[in-house]
Order: sequence, then structure tokens, then C-alpha cells
Amino acid sequence: MFCKNEWYVAASSDELTNQPLGRQICGERVVLFRGADGVSALEDFCPHRGAPLSLGYVEDGRLVCGYHGLCMGSDGVTHSMPKQRVERFPAIRRFPVIERYGFIWLWPGQAELADEKKLPALPWAESDDWAYGGGLYHIHCDYRLMIDNLMDLTHETYVHAGSIGQKEIDEAPVNTQVDGDHVITSRSMAGVLPPPFWQMALAANGLAVDVTVDRWQICHFTPPSHVLIEVGVAHAGHGGYHAPAEHKASSIVVDFITPETENSIWYFWGMARNFKPGDAELTASIREGQGKIFAEDLAMLEQQQRNLAEHPKRRLLKLDIDAGGVQARRIIERRIAAENNI
Amino acid sequence: MFCKNEWYVAASSDELTNQPLGRQICGERVVLFRGADGVSALEDFCPHRGAPLSLGYVEDGRLVCGYHGLCMGSDGVTHSMPKQRVERFPAIRRFPVIERYGFIWLWPGQAELADEKKLPALPWAESDDWAYGGGLYHIHCDYRLMIDNLMDLTHETYVHAGSIGQKEIDEAPVNTQVDGDHVITSRSMAGVLPPPFWQMALAANGLAVDVTVDRWQICHFTPPSHVLIEVGVAHAGHGGYHAPAEHKASSIVVDFITPETENSIWYFWGMARNFKPGDAELTASIREGQGKIFAEDLAMLEQQQRNLAEHPKRRLLKLDIDAGGVQARRIIERRIAAENNI
Amino acid sequence: MFCKNEWYVAASSDELTNQPLGRQICGERVVLFRGADGVSALEDFCPHRGAPLSLGYVEDGRLVCGYHGLCMGSDGVTHSMPKQRVERFPAIRRFPVIERYGFIWLWPGQAELADEKKLPALPWAESDDWAYGGGLYHIHCDYRLMIDNLMDLTHETYVHAGSIGQKEIDEAPVNTQVDGDHVITSRSMAGVLPPPFWQMALAANGLAVDVTVDRWQICHFTPPSHVLIEVGVAHAGHGGYHAPAEHKASSIVVDFITPETENSIWYFWGMARNFKPGDAELTASIREGQGKIFAEDLAMLEQQQRNLAEHPKRRLLKLDIDAGGVQARRIIERRIAAENNI
Repeated sequence: MFCKNEWYVAASSDELTNQPLGRQICGERVVLFRGADGVSALEDFCPHRGAPLSLGYVEDGRLVCGYHGLCMGSDGVTHSMPKQRVERFPAIRRFPVIERYGFIWLWPGQAELADEKKLPALPWAESDDWAYGGGLYHIHCDYRLMIDNLMDLTHETYVHAGSIGQKEIDEAPVNTQVDGDHVITSRSMAGVLPPPFWQMALAANGLAVDVTVDRWQICHFTPPSHVLIEVGVAHAGHGGYHAPAEHKASSIVVDFITPETENSIWYFWGMARNFKPGDAELTASIREGQGKIFAEDLAMLEQQQRNLAEHPKRRLLKLDIDAGGVQARRIIERRIAAENNI
Repeated sequence: MFCKNEWYVAASSDELTNQPLGRQICGERVVLFRGADGVSALEDFCPHRGAPLSLGYVEDGRLVCGYHGLCMGSDGVTHSMPKQRVERFPAIRRFPVIERYGFIWLWPGQAELADEKKLPALPWAESDDWAYGGGLYHIHCDYRLMIDNLMDLTHETYVHAGSIGQKEIDEAPVNTQVDGDHVITSRSMAGVLPPPFWQMALAANGLAVDVTVDRWQICHFTPPSHVLIEVGVAHAGHGGYHAPAEHKASSIVVDFITPETENSIWYFWGMARNFKPGDAELTASIREGQGKIFAEDLAMLEQQQRNLAEHPKRRLLKLDIDAGGVQARRIIERRIAAENNI
Repeated sequence: MFCKNEWYVAASSDELTNQPLGRQICGERVVLFRGADGVSALEDFCPHRGAPLSLGYVEDGRLVCGYHGLCMGSDGVTHSMPKQRVERFPAIRRFPVIERYGFIWLWPGQAELADEKKLPALPWAESDDWAYGGGLYHIHCDYRLMIDNLMDLTHETYVHAGSIGQKEIDEAPVNTQVDGDHVITSRSMAGVLPPPFWQMALAANGLAVDVTVDRWQICHFTPPSHVLIEVGVAHAGHGGYHAPAEHKASSIVVDFITPETENSIWYFWGMARNFKPGDAELTASIREGQGKIFAEDLAMLEQQQRNLAEHPKRRLLKLDIDAGGVQARRIIERRIAAENNI
């Protein structure tokens, strides 16, 4: 169960080259391509004989089927086919799509409801003061398990013990707030030693790494399944989250979770930072480190998924640390119900 | 859905060595072996405990089960078993089988209806003036998608652009004729440049490659799912298909499509040529080239199959270029209906 | 269908290190770990959010969930969780488990019926006069097909022709006896040449290998699915099975068959020998040889399973050589019926 009248990340801009790209999004098989009017998204189904259009190629801004040469316009209407009259060919479904912030955003639901204004605002993605690096994982789990994962960072202590985890995360109380359809869970740890990842970030900022810091994590869920996490450390006693820039290292963990099917996801992860934004080597290094850390979650989520699928009626605990995920699910359920009542 | 009272290619003669060979044909698990009376085909199921006979070995013209030594005759009747009286052992099913033209032909339907005269006539396979080379692919698709593929060579322009495809294929009108249960689609292209594969063939015939040619493709479908394609090029102006041998290079593309299940096939492909039949190196070279070309169809067919399975009620277009496949399907459907009325 | 109120081998002692081990036993997903009171076995399902406990770690004799740090006692009751009150957390299922004879024995059925006295007696496993080496295979077949396999050693002639098979096995009459829930099939071969495996064993005992021997095989089935086989050879004319130790080489083939699901097994195989028990190199060498021999059964059993699954109503033959397996199945069926009537 997922919302369909929403914008989901279907691909990063980098992924979509001159070749078309086939991908299943919220159960819909879609072909993305860079056409005459920018990026287009259509059903990945040639109206001629059902071949996947994603095995074709782009020519003159249109998508040519790689099987028999049907030439498809970005509107889903066949433009031409060698030696054929195409006027009566059935159109295929077009999906609203927007390229922004370095991503291709796709609306898998009713096209007439698509509203560009509903795209999230990501100021860091449009500012020269910030740099971004990220990647994509395919995971066999319900997308909500990943939301739970990200809205309860307690797991860092256990899953990511060697990089960002530390015992004090567990010991810090977690605070969860709901503001309309926005869920915020936050934690602060005062006077702790920075774990390896944050030592690296402090060093990259030219700051001492062998001193105590105040550390924070502020997780923001917004529908349909985006989780942005403000994270950082400041040398102790300078105000923590509110410390001046010269005393801290901070960034935003970016998580766009796109259901592929009911039981699998495309997980777009990354990190946006506002220090040394022009340092491409640092971007690559952080990306590589984050990729390794986030890969540690995969086995856990896939086996959790398997366990829950085998015990569909078993009730799970809802502790304070789970409140972020629980609240996010309520918002999702409310939205799904609203969609069904349209 | 496929005809069962027909001859299908179960294996090439080369494949069947002294060892038995297990293969599923039209849903039937069969073991083939070279027994006392030539090739035999039986159910791949030992009457003792259900072990696969194909894991056994051939001894004295009989098939010995590799589990407990039951010795099976080529008629499906147990011949003997160490220390056992076998008179009352149930017989297993025997399939009519004929080795001819370098292939093992199997009749998966009612044995009493098997008729050797229904085998296709393949004069090229029995003539010293011809050479043959071919291979086998296993593909996850309905066998009829492969018939469609081969009866509409428009796809060469797109799928095989680097070898046998050329734009003029698209532009040449296609002609489809039905003669009883024989469907013929044909195309002629006059005064075109030969694509890479045909340049190679012209050179192998000692003919100039940098001149225009007349090219032809004549596809013959016959039940249950054989497609033989006469293909060739002649130096322009010498009569095309009817040109004297010294002006042309031609061959027969051989396609025997054997359903494994409803959704998978054994695809026996090859090429028979009547030039330099004794040149084994040329045979190997053509075989390797054809193997690469035909492998280009696999992803397309498997993803087309997936698309059609997900949208079983969607109607596809039936254009003039599809007429060969459409007519072939009609013949198949009529034959299946006739089988069911027996 | 399998008995559940029985002791099954879940792992060898060697397999279970300081890390927890997840394994499915008789359809139950279990996590095994070495806790405060020795080995414990619990459901592999964290009561917090359903994560697999087997991805966690052991600390202070308890099992810590690797996702959010829930600390689970060996009794299935949550001991603690950082910053949480755990008194009302639901307990998870505990499985009776005993470590003995170098194996972890698990009772997948009703815990209150578990009875240590029902463990088999394996005196060789506790004697310094014996050495043991073995391994584990995962096989996709019904566990009863492996019982059949082991209770009818006729198959050695065919499946293991190069090591322990010999034609005389076939020719020797087989004797099957049932003693309560104990099935015994036995064979004796007088004055035969020792096959390669037994030549090796004779040599390791310092005995001549190029002479005739008397050979024996005595297979013992006991519920739920254990098969122990006394095997050996003695120089001919010294009494065979009853010959004095200086004239023979003998050992016990050990087979513990644990259903994973209805259609897959954990197959613990090994060999116990009472010659040169301190020779670790010999143990390794025998283990390696046996591993290769027993791997020869895998394809046969998996394809037999596939054949039987496709023909569920087909009746198989029950010959004298099959009597061991047939009797074992009767005992199993009787026990399953008894379990269901409890």
C-alpha cells in the first residue's frame, strides 16, 4: 500500500543518459527518456506488439522502439512507423515527470492531479554553498520499513557501530513532533566523543577531532516517503546545533524511498553538506563511506521483511523510539484513504 | 497452448552423445538416448522410485537407471533389475522419435498418430552441396513470440543494426501469402548496399562487396513452429533471387522452435549455405556470427513476454508486417482445435 | 509431513561459534547462540520490530538484537533495552535444545514434551577410541527421500561406482527387520575385492589391500530421521563382521537428516571410526573423500524430488531393497498420527 498521487524520485539526473531507462515505480513499468521537451516518462510497452520501449533509443527527441522501429512521441502518441499509418494506434500512458534538484520526479497516479507545487523544496540542492553526493540501492522490503529505519536512529549504535554509531545515541532521549504531515524526531548528545565519520568531517572542516562535541540528529519525514536528516557535531560548549559555522561540521542525510512493488524499493540515499562544496574528492570520499554504511542496513531490512511476511498478524511494539515511524505511517494511511475517496 | 501431435526438434544429433540427455519438450520431461534401435525417447522417470533416468547411462543398447540399476528397454518396458523379477513393473511412456537431417525429432503427443511422412522435407540437409552450422538457445518466452519475430524481419533494422539490419528493410513492402498451412512473407530490396554480414558472405563467394546488390528475404512458416528463411544478395541487375549462382550469395536461415513449457522455448537456430560447403572454418565463422546476432533477440523477447504476461487482455496491433505471425497463429489455433476434437 | 516432538540435529557444535546462527528447522526459523546456560534456541524474531535476532551478537550470555539493541535472555524473555521498560514486552518462543555428541539437538515441537532421555545413545561419540569427521549439505528434497537413499545401499553400485560401489552389492540379498521403531537392513558380501574406499581404510589399518574380503553394511533407522550404518570389511575367512579387530577395517556412517521445510533438508553426514582415532590427518582425508562421495547423491535426489512433485499420484514400486525405507516411513507416519492425537 502506497500513495500514488505523489511525486517520487524515479532516477537521479546522472542515471538518465541519452539512452532510455526502464524502471518499475509504484508497480508501474515506466520508460524514462530525454526527449524534445526534457525528460518524459511513458508506459514501457510499445503499442505495436508489447515490446519494452526501454530497449530502444532516442532519436530527434522521440523514443524509437528497438524492435520494429515504432517512433513514440513524448506524449505517448505514436509519431510514426516506417511504412505505416499510425493515426489510429492507441496512445500509451504518459506519467507526469519533472527534473529538478538533480533528480527525475515521477507522479505514478492520476496525471490530472499532478501539481508541480507539491514537489518538496530543497534549497540546498540549488545553492552553490552546498555539495551533494549519493547513490541508489535496490532492496527487497516494504518501503515503510526503511522509513522506520530512518526515523529511529537508535539503530546506528548497532548496525553502524564502526562509523556513525555510538553508545550515547541510545542514552539520549528522543523527541517526536508532528506538524501537519511533517514528522520530526530529534536527539541531542552533549559532550560526547565524535565517532569515526564525524572525526573525518571535523578534520575536513579544519577542526580538532580529539575533543568532546555536542551532536544532533533531526529526522524529517514528509510524504510520500522522504526522510531528510539534519546531522552534525559542534565542539562542546559552542551551542550545538546553533553553534557558529566555525565550530561545527554538519550536513543533511538525504533519503528518497521509492516503492518499486509492495515488497521492494529503490532507495536513493545521499548527503548534502555546506562545507568545502567545491571539493569533488571530498564528495567522492563521503559518498563512498556513506555507501558502505548504508549497505549495512540491507540484510537487516530484507530479513525483517521476510519475518514480517511470514507473521502478518503479529503485533510489533511501538516504543518512544518508534514514534517517528508510527506517526509517518499514520500520515501515509490517511493519505491513501483520501486517495481512495477521491 | 501448442500442438502436441507434431514433430518437434528435441535435440541436434551432435548433442546426443553416448550419454542420455534429459530435456523438457512441450511440457513432457523426456530422456533421449542412443539405444539398440537408434535414438529412443522415454519419460524421464524411473518406474522404481521416480529417479530421473537421464542421470543414468547406456549399456548394451539399454538405459540403466543411475540410482539403483533398473535396466530400461527402448520400448519403455523394464528389461531387468539386479535380483528382481520385473515382469509386473509398469511400463513408462515412450515417445516416437526419428533422427534425420542432423536432428532428433520427437512427437510429444499420441504415439499412435505419429507419422514419419509428416516430417518436413529438408533437401539441403541431405545434399553434399550444402553445409550447415547452428546452435541452441533457451529463452523464456511463448514460442509464438519467436514465430512473430522471424516472420517479421523488420526487426533486423533495429535489433541487428550492426550486422544484417539496414534501413531499406523497413522501406520495402512486405508480401504475405498463405498456402494451406504454409505461410510465406517476402521482401525484396533492389540496389542497396550490403550490410556487414552480407559483405562477408559475398567475399566468401569471391564476389565484390563494395557494389550495390539486390537483397531478398523469404520466410516460410510451417507447423508446428518451423521457420525457414531464404535470404541472399545478388549483384544488382542480375536477377536478384533468380540470378545465376556466380552473381549471388544466399543461404537458408533455419529456425526450429520447440516449446519447453507454455512460457519457454528451445530455439534451434542455424544457417544452411550452398557455397563452399566443405569449408569448415567458414561454417564455424558464420555460426559464431549468427550466434551473436540471434542472441540480440533474447532480452527483447523475454521482456516482451513479461509485458504481455502482465497485460493479458491488452490488444496488440496487427499491421501488414505482422501478417506472417498472425497467419501462423491462425494455423496453429486451427490445429490445436483439431487435436482437441479427435 | 514430519514429526515435531523429536530431537533433530540443528547444527554441529563446531558451527556454532560466538556468533548467533540462524537456521530453519522443521519449518521454524530459529536462532541458536551460546548463552549463559550453554546453547539456547529461540525464535529468530525480535519482539520489538521483527528483526532477525541472528544478525545480532552475544554479550554477557545474552543475545543482543543487531538492529536496536534489545537484549534477549536465553529464556525468550527480554532482559533489557536501552532507555526502555521491558516488563510487558511479549516473550518469544524458546526451543528446548541440548548440546551433546558434538551436535546441537533441537526439539521443534511442544517444549513441555521435550525429554532428554529421548536423545539417541551414541557411545562412539563419547569414547576416546573413536574419531569423527563430517559435514553438512543443504538439499532440496523431502527428508524421506534421503532416508530411502540410506536404507537401500544398492545405489552405491551406481551413484558411487568409483569409491564404495561394487557390483556384488546388487547381488547380495538384503535383509530387513523391524524392532519396534528401529528398522535394520543388512547385507553381507563374502570373498569380494575391496573397492577403493575400503582399500584406503585397510591400508590405514596396516592391512593388505590386494586380497579378498568379507564386506558388510548394516543400516539402522531410528526416528525421527537418523540413519546410522555399520560398514566394514575383514580379510576373507576371519568371521566378517565378527572378525577380530586385527583383521578388519570398520566404521559407522552417520546420517542425521533434519527437515528444513517440507521440501528441503539439512543433511549432517559423517563417519565415526575406531582405528587410529588420534590421526587428525586421516580424519580430514576420510572426511574429504566422504564429502565427495555424498555430493554425488545431490542431483539425483533433487531431480527425483522434482519428478515426484510433478507426479504426486503416481505409485512407486516397493521392492525388497526398498523395504528399509518403506518400514521407516510407516514408523514416521504412525508417530505423526500419534502427535496429532495428543
